[in-house]
Amino acid sequence: MPDNDAAASAAAPAPARAWRVVLEKIETDLLEGRLGPGDRLPPERELSTTLGVGRSSVREALRVLEVMGLIRTGTGSGPTSGAIITATPRGGLAALLRLQVAAHGFPLEDVVATRLLFEEWIVRTLAAADGHDLTEARAAVAAMDDPSLTPGEFLALDAQFHLDLADASGNVVVAASMGGLRAAIEGYVRAGAEKVADWDAIAVTLRHEHHRILEAIDAGDAEAARTLVHDHIVGYYAATGLSRG
Amino acid sequence: MPDNDAAASAAAPAPARAWRVVLEKIETDLLEGRLGPGDRLPPERELSTTLGVGRSSVREALRVLEVMGLIRTGTGSGPTSGAIITATPRGGLAALLRLQVAAHGFPLEDVVATRLLFEEWIVRTLAAADGHDLTEARAAVAAMDDPSLTPGEFLALDAQFHLDLADASGNVVVAASMGGLRAAIEGYVRAGAEKVADWDAIAVTLRHEHHRILEAIDAGDAEAARTLVHDHIVGYYAATGLSRG
Repeated sequence: MPDNDAAASAAAPAPARAWRVVLEKIETDLLEGRLGPGDRLPPERELSTTLGVGRSSVREALRVLEVMGLIRTGTGSGPTSGAIITATPRGGLAALLRLQVAAHGFPLEDVVATRLLFEEWIVRTLAAADGHDLTEARAAVAAMDDPSLTPGEFLALDAQFHLDLADASGNVVVAASMGGLRAAIEGYVRAGAEKVADWDAIAVTLRHEHHRILEAIDAGDAEAARTLVHDHIVGYYAATGLSRG
Repeated sequence: MPDNDAAASAAAPAPARAWRVVLEKIETDLLEGRLGPGDRLPPERELSTTLGVGRSSVREALRVLEVMGLIRTGTGSGPTSGAIITATPRGGLAALLRLQVAAHGFPLEDVVATRLLFEEWIVRTLAAADGHDLTEARAAVAAMDDPSLTPGEFLALDAQFHLDLADASGNVVVAASMGGLRAAIEGYVRAGAEKVADWDAIAVTLRHEHHRILEAIDAGDAEAARTLVHDHIVGYYAATGLSRG
């Protein structure tokens, strides 16, 4: 392989990998503080000239950074149209996890187990210390009490409730990962809801469980909160046929 | 080619988002089972024609999929050079987490806390049930007993030990995430080791702790294993000035 690579490099300086040069340059600039959130990347043309790679390679690297949530690209092509460093990890992580689940890189079972470990950590963390802002989570739970909600509306609020708890924990890596995992199994969760014969009965159970989870957090009972959220999630998967259990 | 692309872009509606069309098409094909691991994507030219987008947009989407670990691209450009679906999530997750930490999208503190929650879950899981294969983890610990190792060699084996435990847990989402988080803080871990005055003393402590973690797992004592791995990681960060504690 070294020989082949060397030969290929000699013929054309590894054109297929030119985009990696751009990615690595931007990562180094980020690590060494030359670039940070809010900063604008040089325009495509300038990056192309500075790094000695084609504009199409620059564009490929920018797409990677955009999908990963590192930059927001402008719509124009003028001299000030350079992409802006945003570092909003949630979308990128969600896209990656969703695609990997779709491609069977991540078994659904492992995604569910990982979501569970995050959820348990989140409610334990919220119960163990005061000062977490649960306003959003309480609002989601209150909104779910409306009996006229369709299953789709209910599930959207339900997902929001769990994301609100993750956000309230204050750990953005956990919140982004949890959001990504939830997005990755979104389709399965909805399909599960469509399969149940008596949705109203399930909704009553879920409402009750959400209230009890908040009560355990408010009471500072980490172990009760952990058990409740565990049973809440495992119970839903069992009821809708998502889990093996 | 850049000229052709420019001309095509000028004529086509919303040219900047054409690459998203390609991503979404591939995701749908994955979800609906028309594509799976080992399958080959159509060549660039064909995707371009079928989807009605420029070849540069196809290439941008393929780069995104490649960095995310979804596909491996060929080096040639012949009719059989289509990318292969691989779904190897580890590299993609590591790249995303590393870039987000570099761009300050993820605070180092939250990365460390998340790594800790994974590590605790991993050893609890390993201790709670028999049948996990710890051969690799034991080999890494044995190799670290060699007193002639440089700090760099020791840390490489140390990282391997923790990844081996993650792999042994059997949850590939946890293993890939843990590997990604570890890669994201790699630079900080090494910088920490360089700052300590008495590396040999730290190495003695780390060796001892690794053996005790394995012993607790072997004894099936989940709570002891959890506490040991917690103190092991927090202790290293404190000793090397990585944590605030």
